[in-house]
Amino acid sequence: MKNLNLLYEGKAKKIYEKAPDEVVIYFKDDVTAFNGEKKDSIIGKGRINKKITTFFFEMLEEKGIPTHMISDIDENSFLAKKVKIIPLEVIVRNYTAGSFCRRYGIEKGIKLEKPIVEYSLKDDDLGDPMICRNVVLSLKLVEEKVLNKIEYYALKINDILSQFLESKNIILVDYKLEFGISNGKVYLADEISPDTCRFWDKETMESLDKDVYREDKGDLIDKYSEFLRRVEI
Amino acid sequence: MKNLNLLYEGKAKKIYEKAPDEVVIYFKDDVTAFNGEKKDSIIGKGRINKKITTFFFEMLEEKGIPTHMISDIDENSFLAKKVKIIPLEVIVRNYTAGSFCRRYGIEKGIKLEKPIVEYSLKDDDLGDPMICRNVVLSLKLVEEKVLNKIEYYALKINDILSQFLESKNIILVDYKLEFGISNGKVYLADEISPDTCRFWDKETMESLDKDVYREDKGDLIDKYSEFLRRVEI
Ligand SMILES: Nc1ncnc2c1ncn2[C@@H]1O[C@H](COP(=O)(O)OP(=O)(O)O)[C@@H](O)[C@H]1O
Ligand SMILES: Nc1ncnc2c1ncn2[C@@H]1O[C@H](COP(=O)(O)OP(=O)(O)O)[C@@H](O)[C@H]1O
Ligand SMILES: [Mg+2]
Ligand SMILES: [Mg+2]
Repeated sequence: MKNLNLLYEGKAKKIYEKAPDEVVIYFKDDVTAFNGEKKDSIIGKGRINKKITTFFFEMLEEKGIPTHMISDIDENSFLAKKVKIIPLEVIVRNYTAGSFCRRYGIEKGIKLEKPIVEYSLKDDDLGDPMICRNVVLSLKLVEEKVLNKIEYYALKINDILSQFLESKNIILVDYKLEFGISNGKVYLADEISPDTCRFWDKETMESLDKDVYREDKGDLIDKYSEFLRRVEI
Repeated sequence: MKNLNLLYEGKAKKIYEKAPDEVVIYFKDDVTAFNGEKKDSIIGKGRINKKITTFFFEMLEEKGIPTHMISDIDENSFLAKKVKIIPLEVIVRNYTAGSFCRRYGIEKGIKLEKPIVEYSLKDDDLGDPMICRNVVLSLKLVEEKVLNKIEYYALKINDILSQFLESKNIILVDYKLEFGISNGKVYLADEISPDTCRFWDKETMESLDKDVYREDKGDLIDKYSEFLRRVEI
């Protein structure tokens, strides 16, 4: 990595330029919560999240979702298509949890009749504010046909991952996706990991995700490793 | 009013029971902002807001919007159909202003290509959180056909009021509506006044609404009276 140009360093990853249309995505050991207010470095986290992300991206690619992943590189990084990130966090919820419960005063763990798709404007300074579909279009953050495709992919990804995890006795509670555009085509970008999903053990309802860190519910590496074992990666 | 049963006292109005299906809506002189953090009593405010509300409700009723208003009573109150209030604040925006600008880091006073309809869950304890259309339906706050009717009325009201105010050289920037249900029918309820709308003078862009109070931009009664004069009520 040493001779590559660092394009961006975020809260959990570094993005290096590999070629004009290719980037190396390097997973750091850093973990943050509450918009960066809580912050730690936990040895081994980057490696695990890279492993889970590439595992899921391969699975999704096989099932017809275009992802930015090109190939694996090493323990902490993979090669990806460089995309123009759409400035939206796309959140899919199957059960109530987290900010959704706090916002609407609703109990945690209620199964929703149908999955809910929500959007946040990806802007740390504004605290990633929630934004409704009609406002996304009104502010021209994306074209309507791109937004429709994103929503279609987000729900198809939900079917694929929920079904797979169900077979491992894990509930996919909710998750955040990012999409990007390259040559006019929409790609699933960023990561899918215990940092960006809520995974609950189906029997015990125990968290196998970043809530362990957010809520000081145990050792993050223990739970992330447990997730790895359960999905047999 | 003394011999009527007080059903509810809110931040700006009192609701008395007149008959099993009728209420008296009494406009107080109280004014609050920032979810009740700023609070005052301003003599004459209730009278002005009652006058403006009944004026607009009559106009809307004539143009085919069912409103809860039955008849005028006196300086501070009117008689209304008792409705079951739908727990949504329905916000319509023609220009960017207020919380919309703060939330998305957008400049104030930009004309939107098409009006935006937003919803907040009417819940003071939760701070009236924003809620998107798909979540309103998912949480079964209202039926889809009722929500469609509300949206239709909200935009029709926008056409009627914007056009009327335009002829008085006033811009209807944004406003908040509440709807209720009685015998399965949807009615426009609550009030339409400078407390619940943003009105800007078309020439000077000066506020003739509660922003005068929120932002300490002058005497509230002066500006509300100026609005009365301008619309010739
Ligand atoms: N294929 C890609 N091309 C360009 N940028 C990407 C790609 N995939 C992800 N990104 C962006 O790289 C950054 C990843 O680093 P991360 O630590 O998650 O950042 P952040 O703190 O902004 O969430 C994010 O801003 C993400 O949007
Ligand atoms: N026709 C009606 N029937 C029953 N309740 C109504 C009607 N019109 C308005 N309301 C309710 O009466 C209250 C009006 O008082 P207000 O001071 O505005 O209260 P708040 O502080 O809750 O906004 C609101 O809760 C409003 O929803
Ligand atoms: Mg990120
Ligand atoms: Mg009110």
